Amino acid sequence: MLTSDARGVYLIAATPFRETGELDLDGLDRLIDWYLGKGVDGLTILGQLGEAPKLTHGEALTVARRVLARVRAPVVVGVSSPGYASLVELTRAVMEAGAAGVMIAPPGTLRGDDAILAYCREVAERIGEAVPWVLQDFPLAGGPPMSASLVRRIADACPNMVVLKHEDWPGLDKITAIRRQEAEGARRLSILCGHGGIMLPHELFRGADGAMTGFSYPEMLVGVCRLAREGRHEEMLDLYDAYLPLVRYEQQPGLGLAVRKYVLWKRGALPTPALRAPAPKLSAETRAEVDWLLARLERRLGG
Amino acid sequence: MLTSDARGVYLIAATPFRETGELDLDGLDRLIDWYLGKGVDGLTILGQLGEAPKLTHGEALTVARRVLARVRAPVVVGVSSPGYASLVELTRAVMEAGAAGVMIAPPGTLRGDDAILAYCREVAERIGEAVPWVLQDFPLAGGPPMSASLVRRIADACPNMVVLKHEDWPGLDKITAIRRQEAEGARRLSILCGHGGIMLPHELFRGADGAMTGFSYPEMLVGVCRLAREGRHEEMLDLYDAYLPLVRYEQQPGLGLAVRKYVLWKRGALPTPALRAPAPKLSAETRAEVDWLLARLERRLGG
Amino acid sequence: MLTSDARGVYLIAATPFRETGELDLDGLDRLIDWYLGKGVDGLTILGQLGEAPKLTHGEALTVARRVLARVRAPVVVGVSSPGYASLVELTRAVMEAGAAGVMIAPPGTLRGDDAILAYCREVAERIGEAVPWVLQDFPLAGGPPMSASLVRRIADACPNMVVLKHEDWPGLDKITAIRRQEAEGARRLSILCGHGGIMLPHELFRGADGAMTGFSYPEMLVGVCRLAREGRHEEMLDLYDAYLPLVRYEQQPGLGLAVRKYVLWKRGALPTPALRAPAPKLSAETRAEVDWLLARLERRLGG
Amino acid sequence: MLTSDARGVYLIAATPFRETGELDLDGLDRLIDWYLGKGVDGLTILGQLGEAPKLTHGEALTVARRVLARVRAPVVVGVSSPGYASLVELTRAVMEAGAAGVMIAPPGTLRGDDAILAYCREVAERIGEAVPWVLQDFPLAGGPPMSASLVRRIADACPNMVVLKHEDWPGLDKITAIRRQEAEGARRLSILCGHGGIMLPHELFRGADGAMTGFSYPEMLVGVCRLAREGRHEEMLDLYDAYLPLVRYEQQPGLGLAVRKYVLWKRGALPTPALRAPAPKLSAETRAEVDWLLARLERRLGG
Repeated sequence: MLTSDARGVYLIAATPFRETGELDLDGLDRLIDWYLGKGVDGLTILGQLGEAPKLTHGEALTVARRVLARVRAPVVVGVSSPGYASLVELTRAVMEAGAAGVMIAPPGTLRGDDAILAYCREVAERIGEAVPWVLQDFPLAGGPPMSASLVRRIADACPNMVVLKHEDWPGLDKITAIRRQEAEGARRLSILCGHGGIMLPHELFRGADGAMTGFSYPEMLVGVCRLAREGRHEEMLDLYDAYLPLVRYEQQPGLGLAVRKYVLWKRGALPTPALRAPAPKLSAETRAEVDWLLARLERRLGG
Repeated sequence: MLTSDARGVYLIAATPFRETGELDLDGLDRLIDWYLGKGVDGLTILGQLGEAPKLTHGEALTVARRVLARVRAPVVVGVSSPGYASLVELTRAVMEAGAAGVMIAPPGTLRGDDAILAYCREVAERIGEAVPWVLQDFPLAGGPPMSASLVRRIADACPNMVVLKHEDWPGLDKITAIRRQEAEGARRLSILCGHGGIMLPHELFRGADGAMTGFSYPEMLVGVCRLAREGRHEEMLDLYDAYLPLVRYEQQPGLGLAVRKYVLWKRGALPTPALRAPAPKLSAETRAEVDWLLARLERRLGG
Repeated sequence: MLTSDARGVYLIAATPFRETGELDLDGLDRLIDWYLGKGVDGLTILGQLGEAPKLTHGEALTVARRVLARVRAPVVVGVSSPGYASLVELTRAVMEAGAAGVMIAPPGTLRGDDAILAYCREVAERIGEAVPWVLQDFPLAGGPPMSASLVRRIADACPNMVVLKHEDWPGLDKITAIRRQEAEGARRLSILCGHGGIMLPHELFRGADGAMTGFSYPEMLVGVCRLAREGRHEEMLDLYDAYLPLVRYEQQPGLGLAVRKYVLWKRGALPTPALRAPAPKLSAETRAEVDWLLARLERRLGG
Repeated sequence: MLTSDARGVYLIAATPFRETGELDLDGLDRLIDWYLGKGVDGLTILGQLGEAPKLTHGEALTVARRVLARVRAPVVVGVSSPGYASLVELTRAVMEAGAAGVMIAPPGTLRGDDAILAYCREVAERIGEAVPWVLQDFPLAGGPPMSASLVRRIADACPNMVVLKHEDWPGLDKITAIRRQEAEGARRLSILCGHGGIMLPHELFRGADGAMTGFSYPEMLVGVCRLAREGRHEEMLDLYDAYLPLVRYEQQPGLGLAVRKYVLWKRGALPTPALRAPAPKLSAETRAEVDWLLARLERRLGG
């Protein structure tokens, strides 16, 4: 079960589709194995980057059960939904199937700290105190703003909220503020960082515990988290900086996931680079640029 | 089948729930009968105000089939979804079950006229030219802005788009502009107006064909549309103005649906005023105010 | 000086321009006299509806001094600005010229309760504790959301914040919550309501002290506030409902101010209906509709 | 005068303030000299990053005249304003003082392509055909979305619009689309890229003409543009990648400008790192991280 000791890389998994748009479950098996082979500590499935909103409820369950049956590492499952009924139903199903916890993003329509807190309290109660959950803080994707003090209030109200998925931007001082609150008595949370990893080394430096994002070279995320833990900060940045041109290219809103799937496909981790429609298409120019960035990366790593 | 000759009231139907949150299908039967008894020309189900986003895919199908099996009047079904696959699947299912057409809202993430047009073209092609559809234009609920000239481009590109659900605000001059375009050669669309009916008489005056909204006194919408058609404009406003205090109270974003269900319950059209969670709750003060408005309305109508 | 005892109508004044776009100071004199002749308790100038963002700093000062020199009733001056320097400079100038207080809207870019509170605290300190101010709460115009509990925190931190300009929507339960807080010990604020008056009678019923908005028939606002104070609630609604069709028409975002100036011009209160560019233009159809609404209003009032 | 042949680096200039918040005009002289010493081709003043919204009209004029009197290189001046009157007044003043052109950002409240086009047409006419202008396309900062086809319509309608300041994100395919339109007959525009330079080398690769942004190492922007022009693309990326960790750190919304001024101050280009309030403050942790990034950069450049 997920606890506030979670650390390392909980990779956000892509969802493989055939060119025709159907789920590719064999491809999913192979992708999951490939991720685990890169040394990740856990997986997060059915997030935005797993194209969860484009799956039917039945497909979501199929994906979750397939992954949970295959994997012994902890798996977090995204269960956000406009209605509590669906959210709770999916939560129960995946927890029974062996999920380590669930991930919930408060809707962007909530207005003000009190409303966000009330939503979290209600959701936490409905899924039940036995289910650990990840609070997703992603204003860039339309989520409501959450200050460090609000995170503390949510943590106080919801003992089963154990991980903060931190994607605020800018957000470094927020991590510092949360850790300072904890030093002064607040309950400790695991902080795992998203947003494509664009600020990862600095987030770790501020006290984050790891990454929860989906970069196409998971081994970089793994290496950076390990070097941070060992206090080898210059080496951490040396490693990270080699990948930064690609991290930055994958961070492009909307387009980024298509770039990521293209890279995963080129690396042999996906049978096709297909996204489920509607989705942006990579132009020939974009593919050429990504090829160029990959060639430079391989050269730099090889050197 | 829905055509561009659609006119009158296509009432947006509420979805009845028990206090525990389950669908109430018997209540649905009775509500539908009640609506039809008020003289509406058609129904629109599974819209935002039908709490569609809080239904599972299976529940949505159940609601649609139940209504379609019961009703001979034309029924439009909301099928908007983040993924084309779900949208097409639901469209096929409800058209087979006898729907008159489907309603689609372009997502608010589309940026610029060309992107909105491309989305509509793609969606129209995927559902197939045999399926007539309603284009929902509702910027207040997060939809992208659509000018009169963009509506024309969409109409040109999508021959099966036959109705514009107009909810732009302000939007009167847009109706005038669309009708003017049509006088100059553009394909004629049916324009049915939403936004709680807050501008309905003026929209009809500008050339709209009717209402597609969910006010708790459908008989007012029916009467206003009839008087507009007969050119009895002063009487139309006399009738409308009596209801305007309540129309305005039901228009409150977020809260309005809870008010509407409370009124429908008081009028005997719903077995409970329950919304599915998460949903705003009516305070004692709000209920007292609605009671007051209803008492005044009954007095004015009775006088 | 403005205090938390402020009540009645603090009318938001329009700013008269010539057809060529220049300020019309003689027209301003006459408009102000006309407002005062309608029985308003005070004025609010240089708000959004006074087209303040389209005035230069010098013009804003000219308008403020002209009005302050002419009027003995309390005048509130809008001083919101992206920079503290301009805000403080304008505040000092208008307070010296005799303003009763200033009005400040926290910028919509503030994220979360703590950031909004910090902004208010900073602003209150910079203008100085001797300057009473109005906190504008207008999410529809892009302001940040402020819950009742946040309003209380701001009131605690800023003793010179004496009036809440309430324009939240829905917002009735917020007024109730603020008054309940005060019953339990919070400092009492004056609550004056904006948003075109679209919910005014209900806001007064919930405990608001008056109106701070700019409807083209100020005598209605004055009458409604008086009847509310006298507890004559049915008469209050009778009066209000006669004007509601026009209130609703003036509430249209963006277009509403042009409608309002057109009505003020027709009533002889403005020498021209001109707005400063960029501004929406009234179509012939819109003017005809407003004429129609005015004719119906006059008939109803005369009957 | 600015033409569609503009290329290279039009650096967005910071505005120096004393710790007390006053303009520092001597500091401005020295900063401008420092920029020119780095080899930039032109300057852009009074942009968002020059904290223009926090200057009074008088201060803005003072800054513009000071820079224009000092510099022979082309200077573009930001003149965006909520009212045409201020925009035109500032435009006239700076053109008389020797500006090469002005920069205008359509307001984010414009809804739909037609409204954006109408705004541009009106603005272009009001400033007069003799004044060349830069169209700022920055949706991230709240501007409206502009597709390649809309840019073409604006270019057709406004012959004096000669430069597109491109800051859309993702935006690479848009540059490609604009260049393709031009190959098919559209009028050629200069495309200068902003957004902190986060995609600069790829934007140049797609056909952009240069940079219009404010990175704290202008020599990098200059070098990258030169190498792109010479077709030395690997060297371009080698140079760029060395700075990317800092580019990425300066790109943080809101905070980035404070980081940039801190770096400029550390490099001796600014007498203080002060921003005018309200502005974010750099925490000790942030300053330490920037110091670390600078040390690594110097080492990498020196190596």
